Amino acid sequence: MAILISCGGEPAAPHYRDPGAPVEARVEDLLARMTLEEKVAQLTTLWEDKAHIVDQDLNFDPAKARDRYPHGFGQIARPSDYRGAPPGAPRWRSPRNTVSFINAVQKYATEETRLGIPVLFHAEALHGFATRDATSFPQAIALASSWDTDLVRRVNKVIAREVRARGVPLVLSPVVDIARDPRWGRIEETFGEDPYLVGEMGVAAVEGLQGKSLPLGPEQVFATLKHMTGHGQPESGINVGIAPFGERTLREYFFPPFEQVVKRTQLGALMASYNEIDGVPSHVNKWMLNDVLRKEWGFEGAVVSDYEAVTQLVDLHQLMPDLESAALAALDAGVDTELPDPRAYPTLADAVRAGHLPEARLDNAVRRMLRLKFNAGLFENPYADADTAEALIDDPAARELALEAARKSLVLLKNDGTLPLDEKAIGTLAVIGPNAAVARLGGYSGLPRHKVSLLDGIRARFNGEVRYAEGVRITENDDWWADEVQLADRAENLRRIKDAVKVAQGADAIVLALGDTEQTSREAWAENHLGDRSSLRLVGEQEELAQALFALGKPVIVVLINGRPPALEAIAAGASGLIEAWYPGQEGGTALAEALFGDINPGGKLPLTFARNAGQLPLYYNHKPSARRGYLFDDETPLFPFGFGLSYTDFEIGAPQLSAPTIAAGGEVRVSVEVRNIGERAGDEVVQLYIRDKVSSVTRPVKELRGFRRLSLQPGETQVVEFTLDSEDLSLWNSAMQRVLEPGEFDIMAGPNSVDLQTVTLTVES
Amino acid sequence: MAILISCGGEPAAPHYRDPGAPVEARVEDLLARMTLEEKVAQLTTLWEDKAHIVDQDLNFDPAKARDRYPHGFGQIARPSDYRGAPPGAPRWRSPRNTVSFINAVQKYATEETRLGIPVLFHAEALHGFATRDATSFPQAIALASSWDTDLVRRVNKVIAREVRARGVPLVLSPVVDIARDPRWGRIEETFGEDPYLVGEMGVAAVEGLQGKSLPLGPEQVFATLKHMTGHGQPESGINVGIAPFGERTLREYFFPPFEQVVKRTQLGALMASYNEIDGVPSHVNKWMLNDVLRKEWGFEGAVVSDYEAVTQLVDLHQLMPDLESAALAALDAGVDTELPDPRAYPTLADAVRAGHLPEARLDNAVRRMLRLKFNAGLFENPYADADTAEALIDDPAARELALEAARKSLVLLKNDGTLPLDEKAIGTLAVIGPNAAVARLGGYSGLPRHKVSLLDGIRARFNGEVRYAEGVRITENDDWWADEVQLADRAENLRRIKDAVKVAQGADAIVLALGDTEQTSREAWAENHLGDRSSLRLVGEQEELAQALFALGKPVIVVLINGRPPALEAIAAGASGLIEAWYPGQEGGTALAEALFGDINPGGKLPLTFARNAGQLPLYYNHKPSARRGYLFDDETPLFPFGFGLSYTDFEIGAPQLSAPTIAAGGEVRVSVEVRNIGERAGDEVVQLYIRDKVSSVTRPVKELRGFRRLSLQPGETQVVEFTLDSEDLSLWNSAMQRVLEPGEFDIMAGPNSVDLQTVTLTVES
Repeated sequence: MAILISCGGEPAAPHYRDPGAPVEARVEDLLARMTLEEKVAQLTTLWEDKAHIVDQDLNFDPAKARDRYPHGFGQIARPSDYRGAPPGAPRWRSPRNTVSFINAVQKYATEETRLGIPVLFHAEALHGFATRDATSFPQAIALASSWDTDLVRRVNKVIAREVRARGVPLVLSPVVDIARDPRWGRIEETFGEDPYLVGEMGVAAVEGLQGKSLPLGPEQVFATLKHMTGHGQPESGINVGIAPFGERTLREYFFPPFEQVVKRTQLGALMASYNEIDGVPSHVNKWMLNDVLRKEWGFEGAVVSDYEAVTQLVDLHQLMPDLESAALAALDAGVDTELPDPRAYPTLADAVRAGHLPEARLDNAVRRMLRLKFNAGLFENPYADADTAEALIDDPAARELALEAARKSLVLLKNDGTLPLDEKAIGTLAVIGPNAAVARLGGYSGLPRHKVSLLDGIRARFNGEVRYAEGVRITENDDWWADEVQLADRAENLRRIKDAVKVAQGADAIVLALGDTEQTSREAWAENHLGDRSSLRLVGEQEELAQALFALGKPVIVVLINGRPPALEAIAAGASGLIEAWYPGQEGGTALAEALFGDINPGGKLPLTFARNAGQLPLYYNHKPSARRGYLFDDETPLFPFGFGLSYTDFEIGAPQLSAPTIAAGGEVRVSVEVRNIGERAGDEVVQLYIRDKVSSVTRPVKELRGFRRLSLQPGETQVVEFTLDSEDLSLWNSAMQRVLEPGEFDIMAGPNSVDLQTVTLTVES
Repeated sequence: MAILISCGGEPAAPHYRDPGAPVEARVEDLLARMTLEEKVAQLTTLWEDKAHIVDQDLNFDPAKARDRYPHGFGQIARPSDYRGAPPGAPRWRSPRNTVSFINAVQKYATEETRLGIPVLFHAEALHGFATRDATSFPQAIALASSWDTDLVRRVNKVIAREVRARGVPLVLSPVVDIARDPRWGRIEETFGEDPYLVGEMGVAAVEGLQGKSLPLGPEQVFATLKHMTGHGQPESGINVGIAPFGERTLREYFFPPFEQVVKRTQLGALMASYNEIDGVPSHVNKWMLNDVLRKEWGFEGAVVSDYEAVTQLVDLHQLMPDLESAALAALDAGVDTELPDPRAYPTLADAVRAGHLPEARLDNAVRRMLRLKFNAGLFENPYADADTAEALIDDPAARELALEAARKSLVLLKNDGTLPLDEKAIGTLAVIGPNAAVARLGGYSGLPRHKVSLLDGIRARFNGEVRYAEGVRITENDDWWADEVQLADRAENLRRIKDAVKVAQGADAIVLALGDTEQTSREAWAENHLGDRSSLRLVGEQEELAQALFALGKPVIVVLINGRPPALEAIAAGASGLIEAWYPGQEGGTALAEALFGDINPGGKLPLTFARNAGQLPLYYNHKPSARRGYLFDDETPLFPFGFGLSYTDFEIGAPQLSAPTIAAGGEVRVSVEVRNIGERAGDEVVQLYIRDKVSSVTRPVKELRGFRRLSLQPGETQVVEFTLDSEDLSLWNSAMQRVLEPGEFDIMAGPNSVDLQTVTLTVES
């Protein structure tokens, strides 16, 4: 232990406080001064246990903090919520109150604890700071539908600004799970099913949050990449279900987004997944967290546990008899800190004293947590400014970006020509449906000041008569956090359908908003809080409502506002137009109205496959050649394929052209694709590039995305998109699990979605 | 090469012809005499290509054989079918004709080829010789439902006798795939979902076919264990779909039945599976076929390809550019012979000549095929006797065994007290349904002389009035072999339902036979021959028929005659009684009638889980602790659990008693369970023993079957069942993939199914 010796006069400031010193030196200096208990404390977090550090007014209480945590605490989870407070407390602190709370904690931590180590605060910010009065952007699956990485980068930059303004330097996003099961209630949190698309979106999100270099700037926050891995294809579609996959499946499908983000950004933190992989829960998967993530990919950030996941090693996975062994195993595997409360990791001090854990191993974890604090600039300025935070509420630039994101996220799935709606021909428009009058935001949302529902958007945009009917109610409660899900009463819904039919009878066209509530597709975190489904059909009487409206013989535009891709065959067949909006964020209603009336032209594409029904699952486009022989009495193809989306204009996409017919190891080839807007309107097209290894030593997918570009083209305009393919893009994990480039032919395919492709052959030289 | 030198007079008979010499010496002697081409020929088989060795009357033509195959051929596939014959030929040869064909081939092979090597014939015999005029036993899934290994052994012994009587010494069964997806059309061919149950059934089947020691006796045949592995949980439920599983999942769930059979029997042959495992098709999986199967488990038999699987390396898996490389890779991985026609393996001769394949490697494969022939006694007597074969047609002992098997296979799933039917109270019985009047046999069946439908059985047994109506038709064609599946016309079926309701209206009770035809659940072998489904609901208008009959308010006993476990919630709710018969074999109708009227008491148990719907899949009882958090709006539990089955009597099963509370490594403990028939009728109970490792270094299933015993008890009778658990039963594959016994507590559970269990604790000493 280092001892501070005062030699008369003021002691020299310790090296770790020197802002000019290199971060590594500051970390080592500080670490050398820390007691064992202080080290362990840095690996713990308070969430529920915030109760122990607040007074009766729920303000920070330094005396209680010192009394309860004499060695400090490393993190505080979700400082803007009142978790741990007595029943009846509101859910969220105001921006000003959040800043006050954080500043009080930081003042105590930096000025009144022995070493003055600031606290790390973290927040949820998947598609906006999940709290009061912050901008709520489209849900992640919607952002992915934009196929616009720059947009995702800009959205996350604004998120970072709003989060950091309230004093929080770390967020628990983005999610780069490969999502392969729409029964899973968390599918909306992902960027979809494709490793390449998800990886690109993940890189953009992390760059948006963190910027490109360290230390963080004053408007930046650390990202936490999650959840490594296998989480997105839980067995039976049930959250936290097993991922019984082999190493090649992990390396081909689940690892790439993590690898890309780790290698291409300065990623601050990564979260291990709740689930087990082939019998090994991720929180004890040393091979994955240490050999692959750290050694193979060079990750230098912190690995954090998912909430309660260390204790779940005992009470869910039944892997450990007690919390001490759980903490030891998790730390040994590479989990540096326990979230969200100090349950298991506090036992690590005794483990070191008992000789069960070398202190040097503990030090590695502490180093990583301290490094985050130094690189976040917390030692220099741990405080936020409440006025700045308040000034960002309803920030017009953020709202404008939320609107842009909503516009770009919309996916047009069907159009018989009814869309865009002809304002002049429509005197009366019926707006019907459980998701018409409420702006649903999806899971991991907060409470934005301003929200625009579809009905709001249409009323603001349309000069004719608008008639509204709820049609059906889905659930009686939209609260994502509530355990109980109460479906709407069926008899009441049948009555509502009759009312809606009456309302619609006098209209010239119908806009019907169907989908989910925040309760029907959500994270299932316990057996009394469920969110996964065994059916993909729309919940309740929504299909009956649609059929009743279809029966009127009027044009019906169905707008889906939802979290999971539903089974939609009948509705897609009956609708004149079909728009997938997902949860389009607080400005979604405006964007939808603009799309319905042709002010904008939808150009998003599906980031995942739409199955016809749950019996087809799993159903993803990049399957192996042997995987889809077919079904008796059903189609084995999707209803809408990966990458699919229509436009109000038409595009002509040429065959891909190669800069050379062959490629050598280490070389690259350019692929150019000509795109022309041959319609009458401006519009966006997403050109997609796929490859197929025609003969390979292990089996390879029938197609794999390797490039995409979203373009805006005026009528008659032509652009040429150029992609570059290199050896790595064409490589595979061979039978010896080495990444190699094998000679032979590849199909290089380009087109507007994963099905309508033109092909050229590229030969890898031997 | 060995050279035969004649020294005047008769040459000494070559050593390999000496019946007294050891088989290994005979193999080596013969191998040393063979040319390269003769060796390669021994690895080839004719099926479609039988066309090349028959004359216009479809009899064997030695001249054509010599001309086309100057070096011979090793095997002939399915000699009793006319595959390869011109259109219009019948499907099956008669028993006499089969024997003539085989004998002619053998006479030629042994007397007119250079070395006189007899030909190996193989046949399908999953639940009876799949040909004309052989006994057809209940389908494999039904046999598994008996939970009676002795029965399975005796059934396979009779199968062997019938097969061998016609000259065939090798069959392609049993199937020990772990079946975890009821969408998969081959699920009926399996023994269900449990590794232990399947392993015990597999051992019994192989012992029944082969006996316990080599060489084979005159009424025995070699088994071919199939399909190694992962075949039974194909992705998306589609046959040959991928098995993306990791090594622990293979070792815990898919390997055990193969390992048990290999280690406990003299297994002659094993078939690799069509599918890929984690990117590696089984036919090139050297780790699996060589390191695990041969080195780790000590398998000494032959590994055979599945039909066309070597060529599928090229045209399905796209792993190889041509047949030569496919042959090389498959042989190198450990596939000794190609079925069913010489497509790829004939290239091996050139491969040896070109130096691509060491002849010694080829020799290993040839040795294994020759060894089968020596051990089958073919060098001594390759012939069959037609009179013997004909005498076995309709053999009363075989029919009696088929009846016994059907009786023991029946699983009573529901009974509100209506069963057994009270003959005296029933004047008129309506027998309704598409599966009432036809005795369906399932996939891999032949054409037995004698078949008893449910209606036949009831008419023979019941003295009251029987009224029959078809109710609905499922398909217009029951032919398992036909590509096209034509569903019955819906309008016609609605008319049939009306007719059936009329017929039933006058009855006192209704027996309703629903299920599959041989077309609605079957092996999908190509995109134009499908058999997998995305829905588990009964095909066509069967549910409507059931509801129409339920609406009459009369007792309705539903009998399921089917291949896959259907989604049955509504039917189970409406039925007064429910019997799962599967395909109960040629005598099934008699057994069912006996069960309906209480002459016998059903005592079978489900060998797999009945899901409520396809959206719950996969659903199996031995899942990991984290796997079943639950669904919104649906139950995550099965409709009927693994091991479930009722009886007309009641049993009381005591808590398991241990011979000692602890067990040490290498030790064993006895578990005794007392069972008492507390009802009024004699009946069978299957006592089931499960374990659960309470804390383990890798995750373990919530329960695992480790023992079972079917007992017959008179009313009031008590028996004590004793099981033995040893170290191996309690061991796991740890994180280093070593099989170890870990100290700690186990739940030892016993009961009548996998849910209703009583528990004691067993401690493994440290």
